[in-house]
Amino acid sequence: MITSLQNERVKEAYKIKKGHQKFFILEDEDLLLEALKKDLVKEIFYTSPKYLLPNIDCCEVTPSIISKLSNLSTPGDFIAICRHFDNPLKGNLVIALDGIQDPGNAGTILRSALAFSFEEMLLSSNSIDIYNDKFIRSTKGAYFHLPIHRLNLKEELERRKKEGYKVIVLDLDEKASTIDKIKRTDKMIVVVGSEGQGISKEIKALGDIIAYIPISKDMESLNAGVAATIAMYELNKK
Amino acid sequence: MITSLQNERVKEAYKIKKGHQKFFILEDEDLLLEALKKDLVKEIFYTSPKYLLPNIDCCEVTPSIISKLSNLSTPGDFIAICRHFDNPLKGNLVIALDGIQDPGNAGTILRSALAFSFEEMLLSSNSIDIYNDKFIRSTKGAYFHLPIHRLNLKEELERRKKEGYKVIVLDLDEKASTIDKIKRTDKMIVVVGSEGQGISKEIKALGDIIAYIPISKDMESLNAGVAATIAMYELNKK
Repeated sequence: MITSLQNERVKEAYKIKKGHQKFFILEDEDLLLEALKKDLVKEIFYTSPKYLLPNIDCCEVTPSIISKLSNLSTPGDFIAICRHFDNPLKGNLVIALDGIQDPGNAGTILRSALAFSFEEMLLSSNSIDIYNDKFIRSTKGAYFHLPIHRLNLKEELERRKKEGYKVIVLDLDEKASTIDKIKRTDKMIVVVGSEGQGISKEIKALGDIIAYIPISKDMESLNAGVAATIAMYELNKK
Repeated sequence: MITSLQNERVKEAYKIKKGHQKFFILEDEDLLLEALKKDLVKEIFYTSPKYLLPNIDCCEVTPSIISKLSNLSTPGDFIAICRHFDNPLKGNLVIALDGIQDPGNAGTILRSALAFSFEEMLLSSNSIDIYNDKFIRSTKGAYFHLPIHRLNLKEELERRKKEGYKVIVLDLDEKASTIDKIKRTDKMIVVVGSEGQGISKEIKALGDIIAYIPISKDMESLNAGVAATIAMYELNKK
């Protein structure tokens, strides 16, 4: 049993909490089950022997070590250190995030992607980190079901266009087509920007179609999670 | 200038922060401007004379008093104490929340209501409080644009049905009509429940139409904010 906050394994795990390593911390039992199914669990720190699992590197610790490693205001009985679900698959229906930094918004979008049969998420390199535990938590497990790739979005869109993907850019441009008028094609990438910044110019220039969601004059813009959800809902209907 | 945390006005304002009074705390400058336009500002505590406004009861205080009253991790230069925007108007298109406790979800729903031309929000008495500052903040100003009434939802729906409103209940019932097939009528109330609990039985029994949003088999449910947003988007299109 580890009792010291200065223990090397605890210090390594703390670096993961701080986002300095290619792993993430998971504290929800439902998500732990998903991570185990996908063989993503590297190690578990536990206070309850319920989490002493076979074939996993498990280590009993004190509650104060759990508190140090936890991101929750009320920590549970375990902390699991997990690898990213590195799924190389590409999807035909893809949602791409351009500069979205809010973990809750990104999580909502991933959940909606799974709900509306989108098959892959692309993240621009100035979007949220793939190891952000708040993002992972807010996807409520969708994180383990869809391939997520964080990369240079401009270069990736250029490659995908050559492979036959159509790029649909969501923008607040009333001269654009409304989202319900967009024809569904086999391979589509829907790109959404942050509410404050919108889509970057270089990404917008790659759009085969610019689409907008009609809103009342009383509103300046829609939250990125809401806009992406409506777009995916519409395209999935067709 | 008030310097003591024991000052009576500071103690009264602190009760408001704790949710024990019929006022709310507002700390965002954009929202302050909206509240001033609607004459909802009761008093302002400030550290910067920028917030010494004419015709408002303004009071200079120390930064530690601002910190005590603030709900933000980085407090600003003022705290405004505001009245609820008590707008008695009824709308023809109404969104009703049944047992929604999450302030972020309720805020998203109010923003979407404004975006998609809904005209009123009803809150069941076991939903979020109308003075919840996180709710008000997350509406990004929509709070000041739509009438919001917190009441006994069952009794209100019974009254409204007699006035000719149709009640549409969102539910995860695949035998129900999909939301895009619902006919728009003059007076409609769309009711959404929390993701965990769904719609309560007594409210569901009042539904003229039960509607659902088709989602992939990989997902159990949609977040309440997402479900309500899609329903309002669809009904606004018609």
